[in-house]
Amino acid sequence: KSDVQQRAVRQLLISITVIIFLLVIGTEGYRWIEDMDFINALYMAVITLSTVGFGEIKTLSPEGRLFTIGLIVGGGGLAAYTLSTIISYLFSGEWRAHWEYQ
Amino acid sequence: KSDVQQRAVRQLLISITVIIFLLVIGTEGYRWIEDMDFINALYMAVITLSTVGFGEIKTLSPEGRLFTIGLIVGGGGLAAYTLSTIISYLFSGEWRAHWEYQ
Amino acid sequence: KSDVQQRAVRQLLISITVIIFLLVIGTEGYRWIEDMDFINALYMAVITLSTVGFGEIKTLSPEGRLFTIGLIVGGGGLAAYTLSTIISYLFSGEWRAHWEYQ
Amino acid sequence: KSDVQQRAVRQLLISITVIIFLLVIGTEGYRWIEDMDFINALYMAVITLSTVGFGEIKTLSPEGRLFTIGLIVGGGGLAAYTLSTIISYLFSGEWRAHWEYQ
Ligand SMILES: [K+]
Ligand SMILES: [K+]
Repeated sequence: KSDVQQRAVRQLLISITVIIFLLVIGTEGYRWIEDMDFINALYMAVITLSTVGFGEIKTLSPEGRLFTIGLIVGGGGLAAYTLSTIISYLFSGEWRAHWEYQ
Repeated sequence: KSDVQQRAVRQLLISITVIIFLLVIGTEGYRWIEDMDFINALYMAVITLSTVGFGEIKTLSPEGRLFTIGLIVGGGGLAAYTLSTIISYLFSGEWRAHWEYQ
Repeated sequence: KSDVQQRAVRQLLISITVIIFLLVIGTEGYRWIEDMDFINALYMAVITLSTVGFGEIKTLSPEGRLFTIGLIVGGGGLAAYTLSTIISYLFSGEWRAHWEYQ
Repeated sequence: KSDVQQRAVRQLLISITVIIFLLVIGTEGYRWIEDMDFINALYMAVITLSTVGFGEIKTLSPEGRLFTIGLIVGGGGLAAYTLSTIISYLFSGEWRAHWEYQ
């Protein structure tokens, strides 16, 4: 069982790392492109990546909208990748190989 | 089969408890920080945690935005925890051990 | 294999029925409570239940916000119920019983 | 294992194709119906299909709202179809048949 647990912990750490990476990219992007302060830029990154999407806290420039499109596509791509990793692991028989001989 | 059902019922009760806890935290937070009445504070908590996110019903203060960031991260963390519990249960072979000897 | 397919079709029909039921409830609710025309009321129901949440197309009354809270909780409850049905089916061994003797 | 991988790759390609198709439909729709420029129309399509839903960047016409309803229903239908394909594959025993004789 420890293999499965180790794998789960590793997956979790990778997911958290990528989420933090996306949050940093998002926050820095809104600070630079839209000249927001740290809290507002972080807020925009969090409401974008979580898909809560309250609204543009100030009307975004075309560059800010292009950046937002990239952030959404990047975040969605990450979610799809994580899901496909889980599903391909499920189908690979690895979990069964482990279980069968434990 | 009753083990599986008992487990499902327990999981459901835990999920409902945590959701109610987050709704209470959210509602009280918006009441205190943003001085909203009960219905508006509950509405903000529900549209935040459900990710519907219609918008800030009045422009939030920086403290309100920080609180919202915390609520979103907390709610997302809960969802991730619930999902990982389900998946780790799936991979642990527990459901099979049950099924094999029923 | 036809059992599994029949079950999948039945699940799909139930899901579609419940979604249409929620859309009708949502549309009628926004028409009555907020005095919206059909297209705007349907639009509010669709952006609420899909969690897209563009925003209140006109500022909602407290009654409208309470109704929206109910619609979100109802929609979320439906999603949770559907998910738990799928997972409990997965764990029940039914799919295996079918597969084993086909 | 290559069968499972080929299938995963094909599923991924189909999903990406359909997403691009929906983005093109959405972008063209907002350009024609709401007379938006390319970036704004793409932005509306992305925030609609991702369910981020920041808000209508300009108040939509009734035709624009009907189009948005269609885009949301179409996108949701696609997501449901993809999910049901994955689940029906899981239940079909195909993955097991592969694993058993590899
Ligand atoms: K919104
Ligand atoms: K949203």
